[in-house]
Amino acid sequence: MNSVDLDKLFNPRNIALVGASGNPAKWGHIILLNILKGNYPGTVYPVNLKEEAILGYKCYPSVGDIPDTVDLAMLTTPSHLVPSLIEECGKKNIPFVIVITSDFSETGPEGAELEREVVEIGRRYGVRIVGPNTMGIFSSKSNLHALMPPVMPLNGSVSMFSQSGNVGVQMLSWGTEEGVGFEKFVSSGNEGDLTCVDYLSYLSRDEATRVILAYLEGIDPGADLFPVAREVSRIKPILVFKGGRTEAGGKAAASHSGAMAGETRIYRAAFIQSGMIEVKTSQALMDCAKAFSNYPIPMGKRVGIITRGGGWGVITADFCEENGLIVPPLPMDIIDKFDKLLPKYWSRSNPVDLVATIAYDPYLECLEILTEWEGIDAIIALGAGIRVPEYKYSKEVKGPKELMNTIDFLTKMMKERAKKPDKMLESMGALVKRSGKPIIGVAIGAEATHKMNLERFQVVSYPTPERGVRVLRQMYKYRRFLNSPSTT
Amino acid sequence: MNSVDLDKLFNPRNIALVGASGNPAKWGHIILLNILKGNYPGTVYPVNLKEEAILGYKCYPSVGDIPDTVDLAMLTTPSHLVPSLIEECGKKNIPFVIVITSDFSETGPEGAELEREVVEIGRRYGVRIVGPNTMGIFSSKSNLHALMPPVMPLNGSVSMFSQSGNVGVQMLSWGTEEGVGFEKFVSSGNEGDLTCVDYLSYLSRDEATRVILAYLEGIDPGADLFPVAREVSRIKPILVFKGGRTEAGGKAAASHSGAMAGETRIYRAAFIQSGMIEVKTSQALMDCAKAFSNYPIPMGKRVGIITRGGGWGVITADFCEENGLIVPPLPMDIIDKFDKLLPKYWSRSNPVDLVATIAYDPYLECLEILTEWEGIDAIIALGAGIRVPEYKYSKEVKGPKELMNTIDFLTKMMKERAKKPDKMLESMGALVKRSGKPIIGVAIGAEATHKMNLERFQVVSYPTPERGVRVLRQMYKYRRFLNSPSTT
Repeated sequence: MNSVDLDKLFNPRNIALVGASGNPAKWGHIILLNILKGNYPGTVYPVNLKEEAILGYKCYPSVGDIPDTVDLAMLTTPSHLVPSLIEECGKKNIPFVIVITSDFSETGPEGAELEREVVEIGRRYGVRIVGPNTMGIFSSKSNLHALMPPVMPLNGSVSMFSQSGNVGVQMLSWGTEEGVGFEKFVSSGNEGDLTCVDYLSYLSRDEATRVILAYLEGIDPGADLFPVAREVSRIKPILVFKGGRTEAGGKAAASHSGAMAGETRIYRAAFIQSGMIEVKTSQALMDCAKAFSNYPIPMGKRVGIITRGGGWGVITADFCEENGLIVPPLPMDIIDKFDKLLPKYWSRSNPVDLVATIAYDPYLECLEILTEWEGIDAIIALGAGIRVPEYKYSKEVKGPKELMNTIDFLTKMMKERAKKPDKMLESMGALVKRSGKPIIGVAIGAEATHKMNLERFQVVSYPTPERGVRVLRQMYKYRRFLNSPSTT
Repeated sequence: MNSVDLDKLFNPRNIALVGASGNPAKWGHIILLNILKGNYPGTVYPVNLKEEAILGYKCYPSVGDIPDTVDLAMLTTPSHLVPSLIEECGKKNIPFVIVITSDFSETGPEGAELEREVVEIGRRYGVRIVGPNTMGIFSSKSNLHALMPPVMPLNGSVSMFSQSGNVGVQMLSWGTEEGVGFEKFVSSGNEGDLTCVDYLSYLSRDEATRVILAYLEGIDPGADLFPVAREVSRIKPILVFKGGRTEAGGKAAASHSGAMAGETRIYRAAFIQSGMIEVKTSQALMDCAKAFSNYPIPMGKRVGIITRGGGWGVITADFCEENGLIVPPLPMDIIDKFDKLLPKYWSRSNPVDLVATIAYDPYLECLEILTEWEGIDAIIALGAGIRVPEYKYSKEVKGPKELMNTIDFLTKMMKERAKKPDKMLESMGALVKRSGKPIIGVAIGAEATHKMNLERFQVVSYPTPERGVRVLRQMYKYRRFLNSPSTT
């Protein structure tokens, strides 16, 4: 396996920010601000010929003038200055340089020539380059927000490399809304020197990284991506989202990242062989990141469904079967157990339909029975994780005193009920840990509650059953890869 | 076309609530409360042998004792009482009865026999029945919340009939989160008497209804659903979500609504022939409801894409092509127009990549150029509708005074920028009206802003580009149906 040690890139003791600017509209200024805002504990040395200090930080006229060894330099200067700056960094023995600057191979042959020159100089001096044309990197453990946009991701165990800075950075901030936390991120830019293969093999050895996300547009046929991925996939899951799958998308990719989109069918086969889990939508990438980083991988494809109302059970069972999952019938011993708990008209089948039972305790008992049943590998719990809104009847209705009394009574009861989901979710999270089976919660809509379910109770839940089913299908695919004989 | 006049069902002058109860845990009590909470302007007459008054409303011992003509009765009594109560309603000349009570055909042959009896009595007296085993109805215009759950939908132009009460009612409350408003709703229950065909043809004539949603599990082969739908589809779109498409889902449907799921391929063909737009997920049902009820139907399948960053443009173009839409190349005259507005390194192709231009004015000018271009029928505007969060730098960072000054400056600037999207969205909404072309906004994540975009600016936007693409595909399908020769 390829083995560039990127420790100093993601955990630099200090950073030289070359092209830092006193103008708040310039990227050299904004990046410095982002680094400071992230409370980076190391030292930042702005490098600028003309300024004395930026944001109160002393400026140095050149990298060579910095009175310290430097682990990482970031360049935001115009592109024609980059070659000589890389040389300066080399002479200063700086091991890593992030070239934010664009106008290289993505713009045409001239830029490509300049990019080759820059990389060649780096090679001569042992300087490894991120980019050019990158939005930067993020590292949770070292509080490093060396990024163009002012993104403050949640901390977590998902790491990502992205051939589109925009897509990558938006995944980071979207994660904050969904409760999905990140450990490391790199916008790989044009990959003139360091490539996705280097990032992949580094992240596979990174203990804080549990799941690797990749947004790819072009893959260098000469690179070892697939053999390396095949080894990494044995250790941790790689979720890949491939842009440029079609002619329209491929053309757009060519004009943007400088990469030519390849043959989709060939990529698809290679993803499958190397155990990479390909998702087809941005939502699926986020949803899978959430489940893979928080839940155990199910042992198989048999799904138990529990629901408070028939229709959603039907919808979920349909979608399971359409996605290659199995909804097995309940055996008699399990039916007997449910019979003791549920009103006589319950469904007596999987999906287990509690028929409008809205109490939490029988729901939880049923969930426990399902979890212990050896005939299934995962559970979709419909209506779990709903927070009963605290209805404020009183202010909305006019009526006689007796009506008002009832409304007060109901408001109070609703408030009590609104507290119940916490115990329910706590037990769900514990059940997942004890059984090793993922229990996917579903509460229609209710976007804000899903983040809370995850952060407070380690329960993975989604606003629709279909999103949960898609995630389980991907987890099952990964299980199949893990179960396949290793060729190495 | 079938023509039961349901005006008095959806706009009753008064309601008899038979089986109303003083016990707040009983449905007869909760429904009364929901009706009162909805500020229903008519009169409600609770009917209960034992109670004097419920919630301050005088009780009558029987329907016959009510000193007024009655338009609508609702029954929540045990099932064995239903036949004689229908007879009473008949004698009182009540035209419509909603039978909330369950334990009819959905539970087996005995219940089916009781259901036949009830319907037969109704026929004899000219009483039309909703249900049995229904969750009730909703009518926005008459402030009628005759529903079991305490749902308060937004007012709008979407109407729905649902063979699952649960699915229907959750669509109503989900709509509130998404900004999708409803006009009429009926949980059709077992459809012992009135069927989906009756609701469909009534809603097709209802002027306040712009889009019809249907959740179907079983369809009576003897009913005229498809011929009727074929006529209705010429007038307004019918979005259909079919539960019981697979063996697993079909079994669940049989145990729940009492309906046997039919052959999926046959249904599918019938949906297509009758112009019904079939969606495959609950999310798609909601997303389509939103666009179909607020936007014009595009004339064709050619999509213009505008983006602030390359990657999302690639993703959107891929998904368009994978879903049968076309992303045509830009002609020279349009390129010339963009050249005057954009930095030299813009993509010069569709997707139009503004390359990290974050200002609003050039974005809007480009959007106008795209809208006027005759080569496209619809637009996906990536990054439109984003609200720049008001970063509060000051409280998070420690540093020298100069840094604090910059942070204050930026905080102020961000606040100014946060106001800009309003003008942008206002112009977008106006552009849609002027051009007749749908402009789908996309802002990754940002759930809460999409509701506001719709309610304040009549702009339809989604949290991922893929959801927007799926909606445009369905709109194009409907356009193809409208363009097909009518056989009648």
